[in-house]
Amino acid sequence: QWTLLDWKPKRPDMLADTFGFGRIIQDGLVFRQNFLIRSYEIGADRTASIETLMNHLQETALNHVKTAGLLGDGFGATPEMSKRDLIWVVSKIQLLVERYPSWGDMVQVDTWVAAAGKNGMRRDWHVRDYNSGQTILRATSVWVMMNKNTRRLSKMPDEVRAEIGPYFNGRSAITEEQGEKLAKPGTKFDGAATTQFTRKGLTPKWSDLDVNQHVNNVKYIGWILESAPISILEKHELASMTLDYRKECGRDSVLQSLTTVSGECVDGNTESAIQCDHLLQLESGADIVKAHTEWRPKRAQGEGNMGFFPAESA
Amino acid sequence: QWTLLDWKPKRPDMLADTFGFGRIIQDGLVFRQNFLIRSYEIGADRTASIETLMNHLQETALNHVKTAGLLGDGFGATPEMSKRDLIWVVSKIQLLVERYPSWGDMVQVDTWVAAAGKNGMRRDWHVRDYNSGQTILRATSVWVMMNKNTRRLSKMPDEVRAEIGPYFNGRSAITEEQGEKLAKPGTKFDGAATTQFTRKGLTPKWSDLDVNQHVNNVKYIGWILESAPISILEKHELASMTLDYRKECGRDSVLQSLTTVSGECVDGNTESAIQCDHLLQLESGADIVKAHTEWRPKRAQGEGNMGFFPAESA
Repeated sequence: QWTLLDWKPKRPDMLADTFGFGRIIQDGLVFRQNFLIRSYEIGADRTASIETLMNHLQETALNHVKTAGLLGDGFGATPEMSKRDLIWVVSKIQLLVERYPSWGDMVQVDTWVAAAGKNGMRRDWHVRDYNSGQTILRATSVWVMMNKNTRRLSKMPDEVRAEIGPYFNGRSAITEEQGEKLAKPGTKFDGAATTQFTRKGLTPKWSDLDVNQHVNNVKYIGWILESAPISILEKHELASMTLDYRKECGRDSVLQSLTTVSGECVDGNTESAIQCDHLLQLESGADIVKAHTEWRPKRAQGEGNMGFFPAESA
Repeated sequence: QWTLLDWKPKRPDMLADTFGFGRIIQDGLVFRQNFLIRSYEIGADRTASIETLMNHLQETALNHVKTAGLLGDGFGATPEMSKRDLIWVVSKIQLLVERYPSWGDMVQVDTWVAAAGKNGMRRDWHVRDYNSGQTILRATSVWVMMNKNTRRLSKMPDEVRAEIGPYFNGRSAITEEQGEKLAKPGTKFDGAATTQFTRKGLTPKWSDLDVNQHVNNVKYIGWILESAPISILEKHELASMTLDYRKECGRDSVLQSLTTVSGECVDGNTESAIQCDHLLQLESGADIVKAHTEWRPKRAQGEGNMGFFPAESA
């Protein structure tokens, strides 16, 4: 019933969903949902934060599963997974951000799934500006199954493959060439490096926990970026990010965030691109997430003349 | 052209806005906007967090000003305010929460403004469940003007009163009786109290800052609640809150959060209501926010049998 939409919906039944729950398009192989960027989703540079964009990815993934009628008793597990106490855990996310949307912009998120090896599932996203069609970001992720009781990884049961296989889509959001250019998270962490930055004593707030009292994977991003020098965050924007998730983190975890910087930022040169390696680990030692980020200089924004105070204005 | 809507919009032009930017209703005196609660807006108890609800209040306030054509060069300042370098700062917020919405629920936020004394503005909100019409929360707030350069409070210029006065609405979201029952933030903080809880060393993350590099007032809530004993957060839900804002907080501030608990929670009794006083202050001494909160026992939710892992599922 749904056909591939161009940028402007024309029928009332499409209008009704313009800002809503999203819908399945392209013969069931793509799920599409629009988001209006809200005032509280933008940050110090007036554009949506990377956390906001990742929240929209999470929401569309869950709504895709829900709309496909594949939601078991959980937030993303299918009925056959729920029967077997299996849950999805993310092992890798890669993002390429072309531009950051602003307050009031409408973004359109497309997401779909594909096979990843024998036992995994890939989920991709392509986010565009709703009005111009311009790409905002491309992302891909790999998910594997875990038994929620033993916390051990599991093979994909045939019954689960039968549930989700019909939704697999060959398309890739990130081309092979783009993917190859994205550096893998490094392991260059040692106490002696002069360009290493550390932030210790990070603990989840009550509001960081999800319904299973685990820290939501999007929250990790904020912690990862907390150890990056503020000069990078001020003068650059995140162009790409690769996240390798190693271990889950619970409400009593105490973490530390380490960042090493390559490129010329260390010398105060803010004109060129910068690369960072990040490690989020328990203070007791185990690695939670390894990440690699690339940054490009921000476009000039008429700094120093912003005469308002949105924090406390209304 | 817009008339008072009942719960189900019927015309396509209304449909188009069901999930969108919001609109002015009731002869221009009320602004209404709907929000669909998203997966990342719910917390450990599966319902929207108080921060989420307050974010929706902020968003409707800003969209109200924008839709009324009163947005100057900022996020809430009118043209006549912008000319005079004036900004709005919040001095007080009171909330009464009747129930917390869940993922996928649609909430409908009504907001309007009124005079508050000679130089202030009151802004009220009434949030309902879109489908049932049941009240979710009622809130009121008081705003005053500050010169953004001198950081001193200002009288309301006649030109500004002429801009906003036509929008003033006599209605109150919180009745006088309800307001009187809400206790004022106390000052019972001393080093000796056995029921006092302290969390030190709180610092803004980059992502906590807004476009003026100030901490957004909604972020304060998370810090205030961080010093509350986790047993309260686990077994109770926030029923009401009064926030007195004293001083702004910037990106280099280091804060501490203090909470004293009255009621029977201290004895491990989780059946009864609890009252807390909170103080968020700079470690150097100045008070940022004083707050009073009231908590009621959570409704049972089949605990211990939640078999999923939304943090890492999709």
